[in-house]
Amino acid sequence: MKRIIGIDPGLVNTGWAVIEVAGNQRKFVASGVIKPKSGLELSERLKTIFDELQAVVVKFVPDEAAIEITFVNKNPTSTLLLGHGRAAAIVALAKAGVPVFEYEPNKIKKAIAGAGHADKSQVLRMIKIIVPGAEVSKSDEADAIAIALTHANTSSILVG
Amino acid sequence: MKRIIGIDPGLVNTGWAVIEVAGNQRKFVASGVIKPKSGLELSERLKTIFDELQAVVVKFVPDEAAIEITFVNKNPTSTLLLGHGRAAAIVALAKAGVPVFEYEPNKIKKAIAGAGHADKSQVLRMIKIIVPGAEVSKSDEADAIAIALTHANTSSILVG
Repeated sequence: MKRIIGIDPGLVNTGWAVIEVAGNQRKFVASGVIKPKSGLELSERLKTIFDELQAVVVKFVPDEAAIEITFVNKNPTSTLLLGHGRAAAIVALAKAGVPVFEYEPNKIKKAIAGAGHADKSQVLRMIKIIVPGAEVSKSDEADAIAIALTHANTSSILVG
Repeated sequence: MKRIIGIDPGLVNTGWAVIEVAGNQRKFVASGVIKPKSGLELSERLKTIFDELQAVVVKFVPDEAAIEITFVNKNPTSTLLLGHGRAAAIVALAKAGVPVFEYEPNKIKKAIAGAGHADKSQVLRMIKIIVPGAEVSKSDEADAIAIALTHANTSSILVG
């Protein structure tokens, strides 16, 4: 049995979700969203992400972490800021000794819904089937669960 | 008297420099470059920047930090990675309770050499005049000194 934490990074909302994996079994453990207060300076926002994620790691003791790869999109400046939030999360995980694995958005959709171009509702439906107790009403938490499940599936493929 | 640490952020090289400021006096204290081993994974590179910068802060106890603002340039993907290194540095400073101030590259050139379009050699010449003992042979350290000096000058304008 191992615990995986999935992270949907962001400077405004950082979604996280912890699942347990044993063979083909997947169990939802907990999830949440880290929301630095609006109006905080960049350094304080990053510190909030670092501190709160570190508290989550201390509480749920994940063995491995999975995080989405950020690509530069139509707004490069907001992508850069998203990258800052992502880095704060990665540093918190690395400082806690949790190995971090990165996944492309398309791989995540494909691992969950079977197609890289799956839409959000298809991904949500599959999450509800795979981990019935999961909290999916908030999009950041649902995305974090999808990322954790992707890592769970990818590892099991790798391990055989 | 206060101590300022200037940071020239990067994922490959993070330059840092500590100066002391008292009225119009500027004194060079120390500088260096944090270079995560090539071949390390992103999370380990970010952790190296965090850990080594934290050690610098513990050793030299700066009162304030100044860091360059990153803009998206011709290669948005490498800008995004630079942003990750920058965020690791900012988190290390914020965790240590050091207030972080951000400066645009043009403001830095203008504060040091009098013009936003000054070239590197003009900036270097001015650094040598303002803080004669400073180590400027490495470009990342020289940039870090320029950033620290910019903050020193800007503060003295603000304070009167």
